[in-house]
Amino acid sequence: MNYAVIYNVLGELLTFLALLMLIPLFVAFYYGDSPVPFAAAVVITGTLGLVLSRKYSAQGEWKIKEGFAIVALGWLSVAVFGSIPYVLDGISPVNALFESMSGFTTTGATIMQDIESHSRSILFWRCMTQWLGGMGIIMIFIAILPKLGVAGRQLFRAEAPGPTEDKLKPRIRGTARILWTVYVFISVVQAVALRLAGMSYYDAITHTFTTMSTGGFSPYGPGIAGFNDPLIEGIIVVFMFIAGANFALHYRVLYVDRNSFIKDEEFKFYTVIILLATLVLTFSLWKDMGQTVETAFRYAVFQVVSITTTTGYASADFDIWSDSARIVLLAVMFIGGSAGSTAGGVKAVRILLLLKYGKNVLFKALHPKAIKPVKYNSKAVPEEIMQSIVSFVVIYMMIFAISTGILALMGMDLISSITASIATLGNIGPGFNAVGPMANFDVVPFLGKLLLIANMWIGRLEVFTVIVMLTPEFWKD
Amino acid sequence: MNYAVIYNVLGELLTFLALLMLIPLFVAFYYGDSPVPFAAAVVITGTLGLVLSRKYSAQGEWKIKEGFAIVALGWLSVAVFGSIPYVLDGISPVNALFESMSGFTTTGATIMQDIESHSRSILFWRCMTQWLGGMGIIMIFIAILPKLGVAGRQLFRAEAPGPTEDKLKPRIRGTARILWTVYVFISVVQAVALRLAGMSYYDAITHTFTTMSTGGFSPYGPGIAGFNDPLIEGIIVVFMFIAGANFALHYRVLYVDRNSFIKDEEFKFYTVIILLATLVLTFSLWKDMGQTVETAFRYAVFQVVSITTTTGYASADFDIWSDSARIVLLAVMFIGGSAGSTAGGVKAVRILLLLKYGKNVLFKALHPKAIKPVKYNSKAVPEEIMQSIVSFVVIYMMIFAISTGILALMGMDLISSITASIATLGNIGPGFNAVGPMANFDVVPFLGKLLLIANMWIGRLEVFTVIVMLTPEFWKD
Ligand SMILES: [K+]
Ligand SMILES: [K+]
Repeated sequence: MNYAVIYNVLGELLTFLALLMLIPLFVAFYYGDSPVPFAAAVVITGTLGLVLSRKYSAQGEWKIKEGFAIVALGWLSVAVFGSIPYVLDGISPVNALFESMSGFTTTGATIMQDIESHSRSILFWRCMTQWLGGMGIIMIFIAILPKLGVAGRQLFRAEAPGPTEDKLKPRIRGTARILWTVYVFISVVQAVALRLAGMSYYDAITHTFTTMSTGGFSPYGPGIAGFNDPLIEGIIVVFMFIAGANFALHYRVLYVDRNSFIKDEEFKFYTVIILLATLVLTFSLWKDMGQTVETAFRYAVFQVVSITTTTGYASADFDIWSDSARIVLLAVMFIGGSAGSTAGGVKAVRILLLLKYGKNVLFKALHPKAIKPVKYNSKAVPEEIMQSIVSFVVIYMMIFAISTGILALMGMDLISSITASIATLGNIGPGFNAVGPMANFDVVPFLGKLLLIANMWIGRLEVFTVIVMLTPEFWKD
Repeated sequence: MNYAVIYNVLGELLTFLALLMLIPLFVAFYYGDSPVPFAAAVVITGTLGLVLSRKYSAQGEWKIKEGFAIVALGWLSVAVFGSIPYVLDGISPVNALFESMSGFTTTGATIMQDIESHSRSILFWRCMTQWLGGMGIIMIFIAILPKLGVAGRQLFRAEAPGPTEDKLKPRIRGTARILWTVYVFISVVQAVALRLAGMSYYDAITHTFTTMSTGGFSPYGPGIAGFNDPLIEGIIVVFMFIAGANFALHYRVLYVDRNSFIKDEEFKFYTVIILLATLVLTFSLWKDMGQTVETAFRYAVFQVVSITTTTGYASADFDIWSDSARIVLLAVMFIGGSAGSTAGGVKAVRILLLLKYGKNVLFKALHPKAIKPVKYNSKAVPEEIMQSIVSFVVIYMMIFAISTGILALMGMDLISSITASIATLGNIGPGFNAVGPMANFDVVPFLGKLLLIANMWIGRLEVFTVIVMLTPEFWKD
């Protein structure tokens, strides 16, 4: 293992984080908030970053192990140093780390009891961490991991834009730059739309941060429900839907082929899931909750898109809805958004391929000698990719089950334990009962918070990246 | 499709069923109950059986499709005609079919409100249907389906006892005879043990019927809890454990190699799951419910073995236990017993192979070029078998999710909808809340009962056998 290169890259990452923290520092000056939390964070993070990146050399080989370590430890370090402003704002260290990890992983679960009691600049930083996390995750999964040859990522590599030279760095740089442009471009469009719909600049920017990253934070306690404005809800639904689709696909649509959406099987499947869930939920709200069809549809479409894309915004307190309505949301929690998006969850493409696999075996049961590979976007899916999908789901469900069991042993009720686990592992944010959309995660006991922090980290990096580091194999040379 | 052979075999099956119904008829005479329900059932079933088997010829090819149709429709027909005694006893047709399907599939879910209000002979028949169903399922999965070349069954074929000539019928006959001997032998041992422990002959026989089949019915409302006897509980734990293990393995241990148990990976995994779950449940009952360690262990081991083997007996009302205790039981509900046993659920071997698959992919993430197949009992597992396992789990979970959703839309609460679905699909019997061990399924609305009847049928035949019949492909010639 080439430790020097790991320290070097982590140092560069922290230096970059320190520079980004200058933005909330300016916001603090603008609103007359105390600049101390951000000034101190910039100094601490920047100093450590510079020391690390100078002391350790970036020379030497980058192999798969170093790639994993950098991604997993990089995310952890950013969350730890990103929590400094919260600590200096008076939040306890574990709560600060929870909030920071929830931000950078775009989970959106919060431990803040009274959100508006915090300063405008702290709340700006909180939303900004999600936007940065969303950008980071797209880069990692479309630009970095596929180039490292991580199993199962090849499927999406073919779709990823960017030059195809053989040297690693230029390829990563090129793809990253393109994705960065697309992400910023769509974000600007959303912020303008929200401003035109009547939001202040501050509200438009912070909510754009947390929509595009499917993060779900808001500087206000009631979140989107507080605006109670169908136009704003409509705009947010559209941009959540975009953020939950593959950004490599957005690039193709914008720059290569306008018909890419209708050619992409995952995009179609993702759309069908949302339409179907909206239909069932509208029916359920109309039947069980006595709402008019119009109101039922308005709330259904918002909540379905919000939960499927794992944003976690709530335009209504869905925790008090009937059990049939809550089951629809629980189902889409497990599915999640598209690969290569900012969304969490298992991802539509994995579910789609598993379903195709199942259909294929039914066919083979009747025709044992037939050879019929699973096809995706007109190409045969290599066995290797099916293996990685299956193991992903197996490990994901195991972590989910263990997490649920531990929370229940700590005294949380069944529904809260189940939904707190899936809401953090799938980077969704709110669950039901004790961790519902109008509640907060401060009720979780101390050790439970550490568990949920780990869930968010593991879930965001799609399990393998973190889990391989726990195998003895990883540390052998 | 060779319809004649299907009708012929169904006819033979019904004739055989009519003969078996003579047994509860004798029991009715013995206890002075009305003989009408059984006499009429024998006449109706026997007449139809004879007509079908005479009218249609058994000549012609048996192919995979005919095999599937016979297994799936055979099970359905037996359940339908086995419900005649209940209908003549005054139970409504849908409830009678529910009870009969629950019996023959060894599920053990009941719609009877006051069990003791029914006659001794009806309750004897009810337990006997489970014993017959248990025998049937072992035959189908060890003797019949592997010989038909059903995907994924080859794994267990290697382990199955019996002559290996090339002609189909003698092989099936030979294997079936051996399994029949083992099943009857172990049943006799259990009945004698229960009689010696103080049960009446009637109680010993009926409870042996429902232990060996992992069925879970009892002629008494409180079931095993009513005996409140640690010795009886202990005997039943041992025989549930045996019934939940592979009967081909029992054959090997009895007749071939006494060390077969410790050589079999599934058996070891099945044992570890039970030990681990018992440990956690004992801890949970001690901590949350304030029980002594001794009492906690007594209830934990019984309930864990009962639910893991999908028997569904309760020695305590586990529905009033704490949520952490209920989560342990919910987890083992999904796992189930061993392949080639009378147990339901996903089965230990499938979970084990999925975990090995997951571990393998973690290894491959670090060594992308390494070739390392998943091994089971020292042999490499063919890709085809992994495929069938994955599709099994995918289709199983889909049916589970759809069933849960439909029950919730019918107005059942979340926990009841979830556990009623898994309890019927996994052939377990009781769930939690409205369908807990001390409650009954009569609260489920009419259409919900039909859904659960389908769940029991589909789950018992391990999904594919029924699901392939729903594909248009199946009916094409
Ligand atoms: K989120
Ligand atoms: K059962």
